[in-house]
Amino acid sequence: MPLYKAPLRDMQFVLHEMLHTEQNYQGLSKYQESVNRELIDQYLEAAADFCENELAPINQNGDQEGCHLNQGVVTTPKGFKEAYQKYAELGFTSLTADPEYGGQGLPTLLRIAISEMLCGSNWAWAMYPGLSHGAMRTIEHHGTEQQKQQYLTKLISGAWTGTMCLTESHAGSDLGLIRTKAEPNPNGSYSIMGEKIFISAGEHDLSENIIHIVLARLPQAPTGTKGISLFIVPKFNVSDDGQVLDRNKVVCSAIEHKMGIHGNATCVLNFDGAKGYLIGPENRGLNCMFTFMNTARIGTAVQGLAASEISFQGALSYAKERLAMRSLSGPQYPEKNADPIIVHPAVRSMLMTQKAFSEGGRALAYFLAQHVDIVESSNDQQQQKHSDELLAFLTPIAKAFLTESGNESAKHGVQVFGGHGFIVEHGMEQIVRDARISTLYEGTTEIQSLDLLARKVLKSEGKLLKNMTDLIDQFIGQQQSNEVLKPYLEKLAELKQQWLSLTKTIADKAKHNPEEIGAASVDYLYFSSYVVFAYLWARMAQVAHEKLESGTQEEAFYKAKLTTAKFFYQKLLHRTQSHAASIESGAESVMELDQDAFAF
Amino acid sequence: MPLYKAPLRDMQFVLHEMLHTEQNYQGLSKYQESVNRELIDQYLEAAADFCENELAPINQNGDQEGCHLNQGVVTTPKGFKEAYQKYAELGFTSLTADPEYGGQGLPTLLRIAISEMLCGSNWAWAMYPGLSHGAMRTIEHHGTEQQKQQYLTKLISGAWTGTMCLTESHAGSDLGLIRTKAEPNPNGSYSIMGEKIFISAGEHDLSENIIHIVLARLPQAPTGTKGISLFIVPKFNVSDDGQVLDRNKVVCSAIEHKMGIHGNATCVLNFDGAKGYLIGPENRGLNCMFTFMNTARIGTAVQGLAASEISFQGALSYAKERLAMRSLSGPQYPEKNADPIIVHPAVRSMLMTQKAFSEGGRALAYFLAQHVDIVESSNDQQQQKHSDELLAFLTPIAKAFLTESGNESAKHGVQVFGGHGFIVEHGMEQIVRDARISTLYEGTTEIQSLDLLARKVLKSEGKLLKNMTDLIDQFIGQQQSNEVLKPYLEKLAELKQQWLSLTKTIADKAKHNPEEIGAASVDYLYFSSYVVFAYLWARMAQVAHEKLESGTQEEAFYKAKLTTAKFFYQKLLHRTQSHAASIESGAESVMELDQDAFAF
Repeated sequence: MPLYKAPLRDMQFVLHEMLHTEQNYQGLSKYQESVNRELIDQYLEAAADFCENELAPINQNGDQEGCHLNQGVVTTPKGFKEAYQKYAELGFTSLTADPEYGGQGLPTLLRIAISEMLCGSNWAWAMYPGLSHGAMRTIEHHGTEQQKQQYLTKLISGAWTGTMCLTESHAGSDLGLIRTKAEPNPNGSYSIMGEKIFISAGEHDLSENIIHIVLARLPQAPTGTKGISLFIVPKFNVSDDGQVLDRNKVVCSAIEHKMGIHGNATCVLNFDGAKGYLIGPENRGLNCMFTFMNTARIGTAVQGLAASEISFQGALSYAKERLAMRSLSGPQYPEKNADPIIVHPAVRSMLMTQKAFSEGGRALAYFLAQHVDIVESSNDQQQQKHSDELLAFLTPIAKAFLTESGNESAKHGVQVFGGHGFIVEHGMEQIVRDARISTLYEGTTEIQSLDLLARKVLKSEGKLLKNMTDLIDQFIGQQQSNEVLKPYLEKLAELKQQWLSLTKTIADKAKHNPEEIGAASVDYLYFSSYVVFAYLWARMAQVAHEKLESGTQEEAFYKAKLTTAKFFYQKLLHRTQSHAASIESGAESVMELDQDAFAF
Repeated sequence: MPLYKAPLRDMQFVLHEMLHTEQNYQGLSKYQESVNRELIDQYLEAAADFCENELAPINQNGDQEGCHLNQGVVTTPKGFKEAYQKYAELGFTSLTADPEYGGQGLPTLLRIAISEMLCGSNWAWAMYPGLSHGAMRTIEHHGTEQQKQQYLTKLISGAWTGTMCLTESHAGSDLGLIRTKAEPNPNGSYSIMGEKIFISAGEHDLSENIIHIVLARLPQAPTGTKGISLFIVPKFNVSDDGQVLDRNKVVCSAIEHKMGIHGNATCVLNFDGAKGYLIGPENRGLNCMFTFMNTARIGTAVQGLAASEISFQGALSYAKERLAMRSLSGPQYPEKNADPIIVHPAVRSMLMTQKAFSEGGRALAYFLAQHVDIVESSNDQQQQKHSDELLAFLTPIAKAFLTESGNESAKHGVQVFGGHGFIVEHGMEQIVRDARISTLYEGTTEIQSLDLLARKVLKSEGKLLKNMTDLIDQFIGQQQSNEVLKPYLEKLAELKQQWLSLTKTIADKAKHNPEEIGAASVDYLYFSSYVVFAYLWARMAQVAHEKLESGTQEEAFYKAKLTTAKFFYQKLLHRTQSHAASIESGAESVMELDQDAFAF
């Protein structure tokens, strides 16, 4: 198993040197007092220690043991429960929660950075608190005061955990099809009837109680997405003052056998007249969930980034040790039988790709998390609106691209190991299996692509895209006299122009044929993602250049940033052109075949 | 698990309509009498029946049960042994073997087509006869008459199976590093000492005896690749007249836990003074193996193609059944709750990509197999030389690209299933796990890329590339008045030119810096692969167009070919341009970073 080493130096680069977190958060009254560089670093170090020493060591056995179901009781792998207790004791469950209910009120940015480490060291484990966070947010935003006292406090303290119960066997991407029913009881509660599948952390032994947030339909609710309501359904019923009572009628009837994330219990949950409590307004369940869909999706994006980082770490250490053949330039280590494979350009290319994806992904995820904090706590409405729009635009990009590039990195990680990459004990193939879920859940890559192109770009008539290209223009304007950045800025300006023009092409075609949108969407998402990465890599190059100019003890670090930026621009950014050409060719060849003519 | 349906119609299209097998094999005296369309179709149908009804049903349990080792004895999954017996009874083990030793003397082309079905229906199982075939070929080409009588006859009849023992824990891509020793015994045999790893089918219960072909070093052999010899090491010693005697000192000490191909026993084999017999000349073991490296690599290419095909089949049937959301053009099936997902362009794009890779891969693999037959049986030296050179050039392309595109297809297959793709029972994730090995073994993608660019293209000073571009020119010349093909031919001509010019660019740069070769190699391989596919897709389009022109009962089939050709040209072929740009940017950004500056 690759040893996990929290990439603290690079995290600090993004947080402090690129995003100027301390300075920016001074401008947000909520964080003026609490957030400073020292505090951030302390939390990061504490989390790094926990991840490296508690979570990483139980990652591989978590995969191999998996979860076990016995008469409704799910047992998690060895060490998972103890690690969760320690995590709660360390206060990580309460990080961003409302201080009124026991939270620490810290920024999402900090949570996202910590979450990168949790996912990188133990993806399956990290999903337990991850889902809990979703339930917490739901109650925090939409619950009554009573519900908050009853459930939220315990979720925040970590005594209880939570889940999100959306999917049914026939309804995944299309939640409008769900059938789970909620019948009102005379006492104001509801009887929930139905079966949910793919419920991550749906049943387990980590906590005393599990609070399910369940999508269901009230009697006579409209069909489709406008007739779905949200319910709190506890595993154990809870008294008004928060004491655990008898077992509620929600039972785990099966756990799925999956490609990866074996340490997380993915449950089939049967609601057989379980007591539930409406949360938020009737029939507005999906709207309530969408209020923090962005954060949830950034959370998944971070999983992709984390996979990229840990796979990079594993591949890098192997590439320095494994000996095979000689460098094309002649023996680099004549005293050895062969050179370490890191001398070979094809191996280096894979490592550099992983590095560019990891560091670029980190910059994007943290950049977005800052905007989440602005949206949620700025008093400046204009700033808030700007951040909200940027988030709406960039979230599908981050979710889809960080998970897809995470998968690509994980593939390279196995490849660097050669045949050994296929062997379980090295842990590289586990990263591939774990990461594979990330382009599927929380909205597939295809769903994100449609969201980006149809809902965000076209529906806003390009407004949301323009916010982003304005940022690019602004940066180019600021740096125009910077000779070192020149090649990057030129390329960026060119791509920005192409982005706008591709968008116009699609919009024009879509007037005559709506299928043009769907046919272009995935390529459009990739094109957009590479341009966003290009913007972020140019910004990182600018920071690194500035540090080198002004003199630094860490020359190698900043020079490596510049080289990685160069690699991204020279080796990866050209992928935009195949996507652009594919977009330009339109929908015809995609839509032409009758569904019976795909195979004979 | 997706049901496997042998794609007979498409196989026949390639064999009969595109490659004119009957006609071509009439020109090869060895096959003049035996090979005709009827015979080919009979064999294909028999193999299809075996694959669909015997192998496919034991594929999933093979993955789940895996192989078990108990005190040196390996048990294969339920049904594997019975299927192997039936396979041998049906005569498939003897297909291409020399009739003098019990073989049927049929063409490699037929074996490759059948092998596609074996791998598509049960990859792990198919490796047992696959490895056996390697051992058979070695003895057929390099064994003495005595060795052939003693071992080959039993391998051909299927009573025994064989393996290829190359890899050691520290020596994979770089076989020059192997350490296994062979000490001569007074009676002419050798004592083999050493440990081999990753030995597929190294120990199992399918056959009475296992004949290992082992790479080892004689005393005082030169270091590196020029001091390796080849030995026959039977699991059970064999009397001169071919009777099984006592156990030889070769023992399976462990079986690997792998990402996929669980049904195949990947063994660590300990040779503890095992009796071995030199095969071929001393110190020329690697050269002996390289004589049929091409066929072995085409065999692996076919595994990639097979993964693409089965994943396509699974995804297609799911996409027609699964309902989610409405078509962007409005409800297509208003009577249903939602439309089947095959109406959505993003889903169609994935299916079309799988289809283009599967059918293009089939064309390439069969095209190459024909040239193997020409090399091995033509009396025309010039024809033979031409085929041999084409094979040398196209084999690394086929091996790397068919396995990489097989992996891409398998990824799409999971993606079409959404979250369900991650669940074991549907069988789509197994395809991903099984296929993952194919870009690693038989020479990684990176090794193939170097082989193509350095050994084949540059070392021949472009001669081997020119053979291929001549074929393209010839086809363009023949079809220049074909209006339907015009857009394809124009694109093909343009890409051919770019191919030559990229090659020149690399050759020029390499004069000053050999690292330019390695840095360009993988992009060069992809660029080349897409152009080769473009050539084959243009040829397939030409055949389909001709059939439609001349009137056919199978209009839908041929029209689908044209649409798929169009899709390939419009949606996938542009990927060449990102590879070209990456090549042009050179080695600098790949080589710049000091190995200690990859991470901080």
